[in-house]
Amino acid sequence: MPNRTVFFVSDGTGITAETFGNSILAQFSAKPRHVRRPFIDSEDKADKVVSEINATLEAEGLRPIVFITLANESVRKVLTAERCKGLVMDMFASFIEPLEKEFGIKSNHRVGRFSDAAKSEEYNDRIEAINFSLAHDDGQSAKNLEQADVILVGVSRSGKTPTSLYLAMQHGIKAANYPLIPEDFERGHLPSSLAPHKRKCFGLTIDPERLSHIRHERRPGSKYAAIENCRYEVREAEQMMKRSGISWLSSTHKSIEEIATTILRDIRPDRLIY
Amino acid sequence: MPNRTVFFVSDGTGITAETFGNSILAQFSAKPRHVRRPFIDSEDKADKVVSEINATLEAEGLRPIVFITLANESVRKVLTAERCKGLVMDMFASFIEPLEKEFGIKSNHRVGRFSDAAKSEEYNDRIEAINFSLAHDDGQSAKNLEQADVILVGVSRSGKTPTSLYLAMQHGIKAANYPLIPEDFERGHLPSSLAPHKRKCFGLTIDPERLSHIRHERRPGSKYAAIENCRYEVREAEQMMKRSGISWLSSTHKSIEEIATTILRDIRPDRLIY
Repeated sequence: MPNRTVFFVSDGTGITAETFGNSILAQFSAKPRHVRRPFIDSEDKADKVVSEINATLEAEGLRPIVFITLANESVRKVLTAERCKGLVMDMFASFIEPLEKEFGIKSNHRVGRFSDAAKSEEYNDRIEAINFSLAHDDGQSAKNLEQADVILVGVSRSGKTPTSLYLAMQHGIKAANYPLIPEDFERGHLPSSLAPHKRKCFGLTIDPERLSHIRHERRPGSKYAAIENCRYEVREAEQMMKRSGISWLSSTHKSIEEIATTILRDIRPDRLIY
Repeated sequence: MPNRTVFFVSDGTGITAETFGNSILAQFSAKPRHVRRPFIDSEDKADKVVSEINATLEAEGLRPIVFITLANESVRKVLTAERCKGLVMDMFASFIEPLEKEFGIKSNHRVGRFSDAAKSEEYNDRIEAINFSLAHDDGQSAKNLEQADVILVGVSRSGKTPTSLYLAMQHGIKAANYPLIPEDFERGHLPSSLAPHKRKCFGLTIDPERLSHIRHERRPGSKYAAIENCRYEVREAEQMMKRSGISWLSSTHKSIEEIATTILRDIRPDRLIY
């Protein structure tokens, strides 16, 4: 596929337009140039974007692809008018109408996903979850563990921290995380502060070769990063998780999004309607 | 709008289906029950979901809304067949076909946005950005600040930490953050470690009443949380940012998504093709 420019045009942050556009574009082998145009909330601003789109066609000789999420009718009309020479993918037009019919009510043409929600309860829960996950990163604190929705365990650098933060940020889940360290393996059981919360624990493991590679980037040539040590820690950690009866998965070939989704599916925290 | 059940069905994590569905549903005043069904990658699994959808219609008397992102043709057909009694919103069908025509090539029906990308350069950049932002949270380290894409400044509890983490997680942006504290106001200039990086600085401010409220939750009755002190800090911080010529915005009525989008639009880090 030849190089193309892709525009993401939205009256909000454009996050929806971009998530949506990226997942569509992932179906094609392409690395198009991204142009983000958020906060397009007037006909005037929309008109400028159309000029940009048309100038891009002139310069590149290829129709830009334009993903739009515009709730305001009159702003949307500027982008979908004939003057706009891009190939417009209009998320709202395709789906709002059938829903209006189904619900028997008109949509409220609200701009953006967050406009009214910024300081909503859901939003504040997410911010609180981020703060909780930060305060409970890497076993920093055993305080308030009963408030945790999920407690991730695993050897150092198995992906616990980014996954915890992702769970908090995306899902408002209070995710603590606890490293499993050589002292735990010698003692032969989970850190005792976790014992009352086993139901909420979820383990991450990782391929020892991959782990060694990651640790070498951090502490080159250390015993910590040595492949024999990584093999030992991973083996011990997996045995401990098995003995303790906690679910676990390997993060080696998984993104934090996939790990988080699996955790939520398996643990089903009470606060989430699943 | 009466209560409805909404299904998000995907062969990947379902994040796209849910982001997409939520922004459509935000156009209606509704708090539907969410049912997530990720990793539906076989006709068998799809068939089970259809049974669930139909059982929900039976139980509730209202057609469930079903957002699907399914790349596999045969799996998709199970959901879009007549047997499925939900109102199906098919993101791919509406947009993949016109793009195949435009590009003159077939889509590769790849499952999920991350399936091959999990350990891609883009993915690793995001993880590195998260680690960087964590290590440079709250002025913890002035090391490697030249590697930062963005440095957020502002008084304590103005929203710097969640915004930094969001920038890292969503956009792979290395975002450090530095608190502006009473000592800085007495000295009358930005922390000196920031001086060489002024171009990358971005300020957050916040309404003093809101700030006082947030700080009281953390340290009830403290001088730190007192409204007079919050007014003083916010005024000084705003004057300092003005004098230093760095852009800033108020986080009071903005979500971290909106703040991040504005920062990226204004600072345009070199690494992002904007």
